[in-house]
Amino acid sequence: MAEAIAHELAKKQKEISVAEFFERNKHILGFGNPTRALVTSVKEGVDNSLDACEESGILPDIYVEIKNHEDGECKLIIEDNGPGIVKKQIPHIFGRLLYGSRFHAIRQSRGQQGIGISAVVLYGQLTTGKHAKVISKIQEDRPATVTELAIDTNKNRSEVINRDIMHWDKPSGTRLEVSIVADYKRGKRFVYDYLQSISIVNPHAQITFKEPDGTEHLFERTSDILPRTSVEIKPHPYGVELGTLIKMAKNTKSRKLSSFLKSEFTSMGDRTTKAVCEKAQLDKDLSPKDMSREQFLALHKAFKKIKIMAPSTDCLSPIGETLIKRSLKHETQEISPEFIVTTSRPASVYSGNPFQIEIGVVYGGSLPKDKTVKLMRFANRVPLLYQQGDCVSTSAISSIDWRRYGLEQSSGKGIPSGPAIFLTHMSSTLIPFTSESKEAIADIPEIENEIKLAFRECARKVQSHIHKKVRRVKTREKFELITKILPEIAKKSSNMLDKPVPSLDKVITKIMDVIWIEDLIEYEKISAKPVQSTLFDGSSEKREGGWITKSTVMVVNYKDKPQKFNLYAAIPEDAVVGTVTPKPTKITDNYIKWNLEGIPPADKRDIYFELAGLDKGDFDENDLYVEDINPSYVIGADKWEGD
Amino acid sequence: MAEAIAHELAKKQKEISVAEFFERNKHILGFGNPTRALVTSVKEGVDNSLDACEESGILPDIYVEIKNHEDGECKLIIEDNGPGIVKKQIPHIFGRLLYGSRFHAIRQSRGQQGIGISAVVLYGQLTTGKHAKVISKIQEDRPATVTELAIDTNKNRSEVINRDIMHWDKPSGTRLEVSIVADYKRGKRFVYDYLQSISIVNPHAQITFKEPDGTEHLFERTSDILPRTSVEIKPHPYGVELGTLIKMAKNTKSRKLSSFLKSEFTSMGDRTTKAVCEKAQLDKDLSPKDMSREQFLALHKAFKKIKIMAPSTDCLSPIGETLIKRSLKHETQEISPEFIVTTSRPASVYSGNPFQIEIGVVYGGSLPKDKTVKLMRFANRVPLLYQQGDCVSTSAISSIDWRRYGLEQSSGKGIPSGPAIFLTHMSSTLIPFTSESKEAIADIPEIENEIKLAFRECARKVQSHIHKKVRRVKTREKFELITKILPEIAKKSSNMLDKPVPSLDKVITKIMDVIWIEDLIEYEKISAKPVQSTLFDGSSEKREGGWITKSTVMVVNYKDKPQKFNLYAAIPEDAVVGTVTPKPTKITDNYIKWNLEGIPPADKRDIYFELAGLDKGDFDENDLYVEDINPSYVIGADKWEGD
Repeated sequence: MAEAIAHELAKKQKEISVAEFFERNKHILGFGNPTRALVTSVKEGVDNSLDACEESGILPDIYVEIKNHEDGECKLIIEDNGPGIVKKQIPHIFGRLLYGSRFHAIRQSRGQQGIGISAVVLYGQLTTGKHAKVISKIQEDRPATVTELAIDTNKNRSEVINRDIMHWDKPSGTRLEVSIVADYKRGKRFVYDYLQSISIVNPHAQITFKEPDGTEHLFERTSDILPRTSVEIKPHPYGVELGTLIKMAKNTKSRKLSSFLKSEFTSMGDRTTKAVCEKAQLDKDLSPKDMSREQFLALHKAFKKIKIMAPSTDCLSPIGETLIKRSLKHETQEISPEFIVTTSRPASVYSGNPFQIEIGVVYGGSLPKDKTVKLMRFANRVPLLYQQGDCVSTSAISSIDWRRYGLEQSSGKGIPSGPAIFLTHMSSTLIPFTSESKEAIADIPEIENEIKLAFRECARKVQSHIHKKVRRVKTREKFELITKILPEIAKKSSNMLDKPVPSLDKVITKIMDVIWIEDLIEYEKISAKPVQSTLFDGSSEKREGGWITKSTVMVVNYKDKPQKFNLYAAIPEDAVVGTVTPKPTKITDNYIKWNLEGIPPADKRDIYFELAGLDKGDFDENDLYVEDINPSYVIGADKWEGD
Repeated sequence: MAEAIAHELAKKQKEISVAEFFERNKHILGFGNPTRALVTSVKEGVDNSLDACEESGILPDIYVEIKNHEDGECKLIIEDNGPGIVKKQIPHIFGRLLYGSRFHAIRQSRGQQGIGISAVVLYGQLTTGKHAKVISKIQEDRPATVTELAIDTNKNRSEVINRDIMHWDKPSGTRLEVSIVADYKRGKRFVYDYLQSISIVNPHAQITFKEPDGTEHLFERTSDILPRTSVEIKPHPYGVELGTLIKMAKNTKSRKLSSFLKSEFTSMGDRTTKAVCEKAQLDKDLSPKDMSREQFLALHKAFKKIKIMAPSTDCLSPIGETLIKRSLKHETQEISPEFIVTTSRPASVYSGNPFQIEIGVVYGGSLPKDKTVKLMRFANRVPLLYQQGDCVSTSAISSIDWRRYGLEQSSGKGIPSGPAIFLTHMSSTLIPFTSESKEAIADIPEIENEIKLAFRECARKVQSHIHKKVRRVKTREKFELITKILPEIAKKSSNMLDKPVPSLDKVITKIMDVIWIEDLIEYEKISAKPVQSTLFDGSSEKREGGWITKSTVMVVNYKDKPQKFNLYAAIPEDAVVGTVTPKPTKITDNYIKWNLEGIPPADKRDIYFELAGLDKGDFDENDLYVEDINPSYVIGADKWEGD
């Protein structure tokens, strides 16, 4: 009897094709409802186009059109000026899930799964029964190929329905036309938001969006330079899984353990390799293929006991603090926030994958005080629109007690309420999305920790900002009281006694007993002829005109003895320093340092510097530090904590 | 140049095996960190065992053991008394992703993807490099097979490392032993919670859990009857995607449209089929294989214009209101909540898949008032532990304005705060999980709508409960005032006037001017000999002893005229009605009805009924309704709104 059951059950066992799986579970890919399906389709198409252009060193020029038909069906067109796709690959790329070029490469790219664009074709076919059309041109003097295709979901293979050639007026590029069931009315706003967000963090891309009624929106290119091309790297020994290590050793061409380690991992030089082998008590000449599980285990443990250099961040392409600030400014232009702070963490590693966290916090202005803080999330320069509740960035933010930073939060947990916007960007060679729809990042402890550290750092900046502001306001009140009332008293008393009005400088100085620092930032538009300026990724950029940021800092000694100390002005990494007076002691990527010698009591020093390569408003507040003086005597600068 | 790029890119294009995909994206399957990986592994194993037993009509007896080793690695053992697995299928089931028996069947089961259990094996191999071991026995008088296996992720195929046979002391069953990297210390609580929750909603299962230190926990079987076996059904025409319809027509063996519709869909009888064909203006003798896309489109549209019977709910196995109430009681035993209400929605359909929503709300008691409401989520009788923020149940709850029901909620959106627990259960032939880790349900509009309707219904019950209670308290105060003070006054006045104390009945009646209904529920333990009682799924159950619920309802006429009306007492569907006095007019599955004839002023009627088949406390509050009387005269019952 029991046997009969087991045999009966065995008959039903069957393989499931991955296309069939996703056909039944389309919501996993982000096609759960017609609104979201529209946004996901646009997103997958645009991400793919951006990746293709960037990989080929082409400035992306992307065209998105939605043609509205009746009955909730529309035609989506996504066209780029990328390198095009060779004829033979078109059916695979657009008609087969889990097929792509970026899965096996360890470098930052938007696509990483080989699912996205074929999922759009699959969804279109499932909901409309229509075929997709791909036009592609790979060389200027040759015609474009036109491929009409469907997906055989039982086999996860493409069926080419028709092939043709045509003349196409562009040097190279790809155009996808796909009919999908979509809710344009509801989805429109999300599509617009997505395209706007992606254009902010991808200033080198030009995106045109044509609505069904013919309205065209142009998201203009604001930088002519491509982001630094992310370099492909090898896995890093930290966090590589034991099973992966064994698999790599089985497949390696290296005959010796030492050469295996050096050639298949990043950050493994001669010295580190030797140290690892010694720690693991393994002969460096062992054949990797002959090693036992115990030997691999020893090797795996040794990795974690030896200090191995962090992976090169060449494989990452972070957004950069200035661009984050700019994008937050853009987002908040009508709000006039009190201030914006940003933080970039150093690169870190999870499961062998390098990653980097950047965050930004906008505070104050006319942001609503009784609503929860707005969260903006990005991964590899792609905005994440859905599944906020399940994202590691949300849980990291929720675990911080924000009440001490002036935000409301019931019982010190959860997303705080208050006038703020929090932006998180993760760049990585492998973003651990919680699902194939790529909308939320999984709760990997290493990532959560980095996000927490970044937000704590920002929160401290916020706190110091508030603190500095409060102290300055208080001192200013005192200052105004003294400088207005004392002279009045002196004048009146002198008149009464018929004596000359005494100089009050020393008295004021004695009462104030501080170094007072004030600053002013102005911008000057420079001529319309092209100028070189430095971009967020460190590369330089040629732009039609630009802005010079001019910062003036006034230091007044209201103490009764001459003062001597060092002053530091923090500057954005991507700014180019112009005129500086007086002569600074040091200029680095991050600061300018002056050695201020003996300022006599009641005397002042004027300090001036110019920054190029920034937009108007990118640098809108001086960040000043002092050294070799008790910082509690200084109003307007903090203690210098070192580089 | 451009051509060179396209060809260069083409070289990198490669197929990705699904095993390789999940190896790199293990977080998608719920293995993102060592704590969660432990819970997911236990869950996948237990779910699989429960499905196997139920499919074969075996009462599940499941053994879970975690053996702790050092270095964060542990061995997980999951053993069941199911039908076992034939030798040939073992490598496929445990060593190949997207392989299973439940994917193509439209019926409710826990597993539906063919991923879960092989994902555990994959994760174990990835993190520990060790092989998994499967022991299986399919017939009493034969030995068990022992299979040691690994997964070749490049091919998504199993590698059998070793095969053996052994004697095993059980008639049939399967035992999986797998080593995994896991955080037992942190994960322990979640494993325990998961096993407890699953045993509550699966009272027919016995689960033993052995901890690394040898401690054993037994989650006892509380019902000897298997839940109703869910029947496999065909897709329903509502919500079937156009693409799926075309695919079905291509693969059908039917030669005519009418027979295709009748044989491949559920709810399509002769009359409906004819109506659909006429609406679509299609000849019912058309060959499905020869139909054009336009014809399919017409057919697809016609489906939605014709009223088609809801799918049979045979394929679903809901938990049932009584069991939900019982599980909530269990969850809140130390809280003594004010009341618990439950709602079962009728079955509905999304994308051709039948589903049913059941919910429960616990209110009051010592539940914390300043914390957000606790959410409990279940899908096909499996508790969902993670990704709450991204679940459709959460968004449905968040979109309701709970402030009018006495819960706090900033700006009328979001999870409310207050002394309540909300439970949601979805049963379906296909739960649309947001990812393969099966932790959250996607935001499908049809599902969100049903959950909202269910919660609104429950909220109304809560409101009516509060309303009834407030009215009763007020009237009782008045009543007590009158029945205590009036007689005192009467007595004193009579004494003073030296006259006999008058009868106050009529006066009291005049002041009260209501029908007062009070009730009392008691339980009586019945003898230890086995009794038949009815279970949540409508089947009957043999139990050692049980409880009789005894309900007494007292109706007093405090109005000045005789009253005549109908009284309804709602009863749980799964209760068996025993003695009822006076003789009722009608008894259905859902209520008992009495016709109360002319109750004179100041007179009362005693009503009594007994219910069997319930546990002590399952029925702990009478739900009474009145008809043919102005309900505002009645305290303790609501207006009868019909069946």
